[in-house]
Amino acid sequence: MLSREENELLTRVGRGTPMGELLRRYWYPIAASSELIEKPTKAVRVLDEDLVLYRDKQGRPGLIGSQCAHRRMSLVLGIPEKDGLRCPYHGWLYDRNGKCLEQPYEQAEDPDSTFKERIRMPAYPVEELGGLIFAYLGPQPAPLLPRWELFVRDGVLRDIGAAVIPCNWLQIMGIIKTRMLEGESEDNEDWQVGHPVLFPNILLSGSTSRPTFQIRVPVDDTHTLHLWYTCYPRGDSEGPQEVIPFYNVPVPGVDATGEPQWALLDNNSGEDMIAWITQGGVADRTQEALGLSDKGIILYRRQLKEQLEKVQTGQDPINVFRDPTKNVYIKLRLEDSKLNSGSFRSGPRRQGGATKYSPVLNQEERVGK
Amino acid sequence: MLSREENELLTRVGRGTPMGELLRRYWYPIAASSELIEKPTKAVRVLDEDLVLYRDKQGRPGLIGSQCAHRRMSLVLGIPEKDGLRCPYHGWLYDRNGKCLEQPYEQAEDPDSTFKERIRMPAYPVEELGGLIFAYLGPQPAPLLPRWELFVRDGVLRDIGAAVIPCNWLQIMGIIKTRMLEGESEDNEDWQVGHPVLFPNILLSGSTSRPTFQIRVPVDDTHTLHLWYTCYPRGDSEGPQEVIPFYNVPVPGVDATGEPQWALLDNNSGEDMIAWITQGGVADRTQEALGLSDKGIILYRRQLKEQLEKVQTGQDPINVFRDPTKNVYIKLRLEDSKLNSGSFRSGPRRQGGATKYSPVLNQEERVGK
Amino acid sequence: MLSREENELLTRVGRGTPMGELLRRYWYPIAASSELIEKPTKAVRVLDEDLVLYRDKQGRPGLIGSQCAHRRMSLVLGIPEKDGLRCPYHGWLYDRNGKCLEQPYEQAEDPDSTFKERIRMPAYPVEELGGLIFAYLGPQPAPLLPRWELFVRDGVLRDIGAAVIPCNWLQIMGIIKTRMLEGESEDNEDWQVGHPVLFPNILLSGSTSRPTFQIRVPVDDTHTLHLWYTCYPRGDSEGPQEVIPFYNVPVPGVDATGEPQWALLDNNSGEDMIAWITQGGVADRTQEALGLSDKGIILYRRQLKEQLEKVQTGQDPINVFRDPTKNVYIKLRLEDSKLNSGSFRSGPRRQGGATKYSPVLNQEERVGK
Repeated sequence: MLSREENELLTRVGRGTPMGELLRRYWYPIAASSELIEKPTKAVRVLDEDLVLYRDKQGRPGLIGSQCAHRRMSLVLGIPEKDGLRCPYHGWLYDRNGKCLEQPYEQAEDPDSTFKERIRMPAYPVEELGGLIFAYLGPQPAPLLPRWELFVRDGVLRDIGAAVIPCNWLQIMGIIKTRMLEGESEDNEDWQVGHPVLFPNILLSGSTSRPTFQIRVPVDDTHTLHLWYTCYPRGDSEGPQEVIPFYNVPVPGVDATGEPQWALLDNNSGEDMIAWITQGGVADRTQEALGLSDKGIILYRRQLKEQLEKVQTGQDPINVFRDPTKNVYIKLRLEDSKLNSGSFRSGPRRQGGATKYSPVLNQEERVGK
Repeated sequence: MLSREENELLTRVGRGTPMGELLRRYWYPIAASSELIEKPTKAVRVLDEDLVLYRDKQGRPGLIGSQCAHRRMSLVLGIPEKDGLRCPYHGWLYDRNGKCLEQPYEQAEDPDSTFKERIRMPAYPVEELGGLIFAYLGPQPAPLLPRWELFVRDGVLRDIGAAVIPCNWLQIMGIIKTRMLEGESEDNEDWQVGHPVLFPNILLSGSTSRPTFQIRVPVDDTHTLHLWYTCYPRGDSEGPQEVIPFYNVPVPGVDATGEPQWALLDNNSGEDMIAWITQGGVADRTQEALGLSDKGIILYRRQLKEQLEKVQTGQDPINVFRDPTKNVYIKLRLEDSKLNSGSFRSGPRRQGGATKYSPVLNQEERVGK
Repeated sequence: MLSREENELLTRVGRGTPMGELLRRYWYPIAASSELIEKPTKAVRVLDEDLVLYRDKQGRPGLIGSQCAHRRMSLVLGIPEKDGLRCPYHGWLYDRNGKCLEQPYEQAEDPDSTFKERIRMPAYPVEELGGLIFAYLGPQPAPLLPRWELFVRDGVLRDIGAAVIPCNWLQIMGIIKTRMLEGESEDNEDWQVGHPVLFPNILLSGSTSRPTFQIRVPVDDTHTLHLWYTCYPRGDSEGPQEVIPFYNVPVPGVDATGEPQWALLDNNSGEDMIAWITQGGVADRTQEALGLSDKGIILYRRQLKEQLEKVQTGQDPINVFRDPTKNVYIKLRLEDSKLNSGSFRSGPRRQGGATKYSPVLNQEERVGK
């Protein structure tokens, strides 16, 4: 049970809040690279900030404030150009650093105008890795984007599922290490391996031959972008994957009469989501009752508080990487044997989670692999 | 015309408000028994409290708080068992009194754990009568569930219509005793009989050979569950009714442009509802102008205030029954002759109200009775 | 850039606010006359007031408060009669001046009742001109309804498009006088003529042979009724127009994921609307950066402040007409030559705006004119 103040401390993600400042020390995936193939821009809300993601004509992703500095029109309508994003209203052009490069009317009427030099838009660094576009919203110098094994390993197929879940990120981090499943013995990998957390927001779901990162990106205090980043062993005959497919995972809820959407609860990701969502936008932890089963929760909250203190005393929190030699390939302790298994494990749980909607897996099944 | 304070006094239904405390002295129907045949649970909001109704495997209905005491997941996802309702998140089991019977992980790790004895969920008594499930949310000892004639009389068919109306319950109690209908004389039963109110929230609509209770259950300050509980004379050849059918009555409103939904206004229940709804969530009675036509309203408000005083001085308000010998069969003064009529009266008003949607009546009509 | 206080001063439209009082000195179109052919009433929200428009059985439009003075039911359900609008709840009848003419039950029970004389509903003057119904919500004596050329000129066909745009009216007044269009020379009429504003809320779009008034009617602080009032030259063989057609213009927005509704952005009215809407309900002008391109905006804001002062010192603001001899036919400086051109100009921009949805224009095109 937490006090109201402690609950707010751990759940608020906006700029200037203690947790918002801690969370800003990390990179977050905000889109799949493939999302920008079909559409020119993507509206992004992350850590309570409204931004627009685009890819310029040189192929570089950029992330700037959502409202044009001139007259506040949304740049989700912006037009990507060689050097940045142009507002369609009066044509102001911004580069990836938020600098205003052009103001057509001002320059036409006064070629010596210095007005554009006094304009600055919010802008944040973005990098691509493993088919994801990551952003960093914290203080400079930015740390390195961690090269976790799943993002960089060769010889695998990947796909990326996404859902925006209408609740605070912290209640999604409420995992227990082991599950008790009727009829399964303690030899089961769920007992042996568990689900490690890569602080602050990645769960490695390692219970099958398809390792998955469940990445929880705080959108705002009451919404979380949930990504399922899955790797599948790739046969020698298959070439490298040109585009990592992106798919949406439907989010179950309760309808206006309070009735659960049972049709979306036929898989364990759907069940997880409704357990998180029905706790409310921010769970009222003044009314919880934690027990022995919640050691993981208690440990995680303690870890959050320790890292909050580190930030407040000017130190880097854990999992902030600054040494490039240590960021080539960050091996994950327990996954190696599984990836080396080289084949899918069959069984009834195969389609049991968000991968129910996975295009890679569905294609595999169709071709009878 | 009321002051703002008087309007609030008469309309607020939450725990701790004066009217909320008065209303908590009565039993309220919260579901039809038949609703729990198809689905395991029903989300119930009544008197501003969120609860979950279920039927255990012994057949007993139970009503407990909507959020699990452990980690706040909604128990509308709960699984009914022999002794209560189990949360699907970590398996805690609650009985009908809100007592926690099992915490599987705690018991597995520490068989001597007393943790579950320190857990208590909100829980309220429920009883079934006449095909309805009633709840009592007030102080103990609970009064008797009144056995009004319509609920207990033999030899009738029944059905139950329901709608959640988006306005405060009090503006639904705004009846006048008689209606003036063009072309009808004062011999008409509407003049002779009128529509008695069973304090606090039941209107007996007695103007036809189909007596109907219109039961208004306060959901919260701006929503009301409206039930149409109708009895139809039953022929000797018909057996008793095994399941009392339940039907939803569509609620008319105005669309986003302010245009009324005319298609739902072809019956007098639809017309009644839009008259109530368009007064707003809580009607602004500081702007009303009551006249001679509103004697019933004025009388009813006075009655509410008298009963509020009774509760505040520790007495039972009216229509609270505690003597079982007086609660066997509460006869309603004016209905007997009608029920004895033994046949339906024909005429254009037959399908005029919510019974437009009644499965019993629609079936009667189909078989040409 | 404005201070927060200045932004509020210029954007609030409710009764009692400075801008609300200035705006109340003008007539506003609130419906097309033809809208009341099919339906008996229209819910109208204008200058933050909820009203009901109807046409009595003598053919006169009336505009009164939306809630019956008796028991607060909405008069959008009212029944137009010879002398006014009757509430269907208990039959009170109101005339066009808000006077209560009948209270059937009161009169039946007490023929000498003077109750109805003590009842008064909000009511405002309405007038019809050029197929529009205009209302005046300001202090008496009301000024004249201006007879702008487009409303009164003979020999034209007209139609009226409408959309309710979810943003404050002021950001819709954010025009620049000239547009820079790639590949067009300064001979283009857009350069020569521009788009004059008839203070406070009408833009004359004069760039084609189809002059259009874009009329922006403040609904409330965050909504604006936008009318496209278009005139088309009429051939000698065509008779006068009996009914001026009314059409709805779809409003583009961004969907729940922030994605623009591209399908509605294939015309310049759609583009204009999304530029206004994506600035937010009320644009945050503390974050704008105006330049040389915004001279028109700056001029218009200065004009608003000057007129605010006039009202505060008891004078009529500009464009308030009180001399009937000067209100016969208010010629618009630059339009005459175009209306005289006698034929449509062909070209790719013909269907470029809201007129994409115009029934007159679409019919013209079908018959090959």
